[in-house]
Amino acid sequence: MEKLTIIKVGGKIVEEPDTLQALLQDFSRIAGYKLLVHGGGRSATRVAAQLGIESKMVDGRRITDAETLKVVTMVYGGLVNKTIVAGLQALSVDALGMTGADMDILRSEKRPVKEIDYGFVGDVKRVKGDTLAALIRSGAVPVLAPLTHDGKGNLLNTNADTIAGEAAKALAAFFDVTLVYCFEKKGVLRDENDDESVIPEIDEPLFRQYVAGGVIQGGMIPKLENAFAAIRAGVREVVITQASAIGTDGGTRIR
Amino acid sequence: MEKLTIIKVGGKIVEEPDTLQALLQDFSRIAGYKLLVHGGGRSATRVAAQLGIESKMVDGRRITDAETLKVVTMVYGGLVNKTIVAGLQALSVDALGMTGADMDILRSEKRPVKEIDYGFVGDVKRVKGDTLAALIRSGAVPVLAPLTHDGKGNLLNTNADTIAGEAAKALAAFFDVTLVYCFEKKGVLRDENDDESVIPEIDEPLFRQYVAGGVIQGGMIPKLENAFAAIRAGVREVVITQASAIGTDGGTRIR
Repeated sequence: MEKLTIIKVGGKIVEEPDTLQALLQDFSRIAGYKLLVHGGGRSATRVAAQLGIESKMVDGRRITDAETLKVVTMVYGGLVNKTIVAGLQALSVDALGMTGADMDILRSEKRPVKEIDYGFVGDVKRVKGDTLAALIRSGAVPVLAPLTHDGKGNLLNTNADTIAGEAAKALAAFFDVTLVYCFEKKGVLRDENDDESVIPEIDEPLFRQYVAGGVIQGGMIPKLENAFAAIRAGVREVVITQASAIGTDGGTRIR
Repeated sequence: MEKLTIIKVGGKIVEEPDTLQALLQDFSRIAGYKLLVHGGGRSATRVAAQLGIESKMVDGRRITDAETLKVVTMVYGGLVNKTIVAGLQALSVDALGMTGADMDILRSEKRPVKEIDYGFVGDVKRVKGDTLAALIRSGAVPVLAPLTHDGKGNLLNTNADTIAGEAAKALAAFFDVTLVYCFEKKGVLRDENDDESVIPEIDEPLFRQYVAGGVIQGGMIPKLENAFAAIRAGVREVVITQASAIGTDGGTRIR
C-alpha cells in the first residue's frame, strides 16, 4: 500500500507566525500522501474574551455553550484553518481545509450529560475513509479543523487528537499510515525533568511496565492508550514528537 | 452537456435562521449538479464591532485592513460557511465549504491602490474550473465563501457576486451553466417603486435601451454588465431573482 503521513499539531504552534511558518515548511517537505489535523485552543480563548464570552475549562476540555461554539467555528474552522491552507498553497501543497461537516467526513454525537455538561462537544462516531482516501488520491491534502457535525445541522467541537486518531484508523484500510502527534516535548520521556530522556520506541508490554513503575503518568497515559488503539486498528506506526522534529528520526515510536 | 446551477446569495439571507433554513431547503431541492456562493456582510460588521474594530465602507465595499481580514476570515470562512455546510448535510446535500485558497480554486491579486486603498481585497485572476468540475462530478456540492488567495500565503476579501460570475464562466467549459443571483427584489424592475414590475427577460440591446431611458440605473447596471459578460463567456442563462423564488420561473432572465 502507498504511504500516508498524518500529522497532528496543537493550537499553540499554529498561533505564532514563526512556529507556524516552520511547521508549514516541514510539512510541505513530507514526501507522498499527507494530511494535517490542527487544534486551535488559545486563540479561541482570546477571541471569546474579546467578545465578552467567558471560557470555561474542565479537565483541560472546553465547555462549549452556544456562543462558544460560534467562536470555535470562527476561529478553528475559519481563521486557523484557512491561514494554514493559504500558507500551504504558497508552498505548493494543494491543501483543502475541512471540518467534519464538509463532505460529511466526520460525524459525531453530542456527548451525553453525566457529571459534567460539556455542551456542544462531539464524540466521533463515523469517519468516511473512502471519501477522504479519494480526495487524497486525487492530489488534495486535507487540513482538518477540530470540528465535526451530527448530521442534523449542528457543528460540534471535537478534540483534535481524537480526530487524528479516528482518521488514521479509517484510512488504514486504504494506506500504510504513519500518525504523528506533535507536542511540546521531544517525545515520551523516561524522566519528566530531563527533556533529553526520550524513550525511542514503546510497545504495549513496555508501556504497561512503565505505567506500573510510574515512569509514564498523567495525560501521557490516554495519549498512548489512543496510540495503541490506532496500532491495533491497522495504523502502522504512531510517533510522538516535537513539531520541529517532523521528518527526522526523533521522538517516540509506537508500534 | 450536463446542467449545473450556481446560486449566489447575499449575507443577509444566511444570517437569519428562518431565511437561511428556507434557502437551504430550496437549494437542496435543485436537481442535478449545483454550487452555492454566499456573502456574509453584516455579521462581519457585528463581530468586528464586538471586537472593537471599526468597519469602514466606501461605495458599499468594505475596507479590509489586517484586523478586518481576520474577522472576515473567521465569519465568512468559518461561521457562515460551516453553518451552511452543516445545514446542507442535514438535508442530504454533500456540501464542501471552500475559500479560493482551498485546492487553489480561486486565485486573486490584491487590488492596486489608486484613489482608495481597499486593503486586503482581491480581484479574481484565475479560477481552476477543472478542479471544481472534478469535485462536482465526484458528487460534492461546493459552497464558496467570499475569500480568495494570492498564492503567496495571503487570503483576500473578494466580492461574492464576482466569485459567482467568475466560477460560472470557468465552469461553462464543463457544464451547461445557469447562474442565479439572489437579491432583495423579485428581479430587475421596470419601476423601482413597484415590486411587481419585474422585467421577465432582457437581452443586451434591450438592456442598453433601458439604461438610456433611465429605467435601469444605479447598482443594477454593473450587476447586469457582469451578467452579460458571463453570457458572452458561455454561461447559458443568468437569472436575477429573490432567494424565495429559487426553483420557480420568477425573476429576470438574461440570455
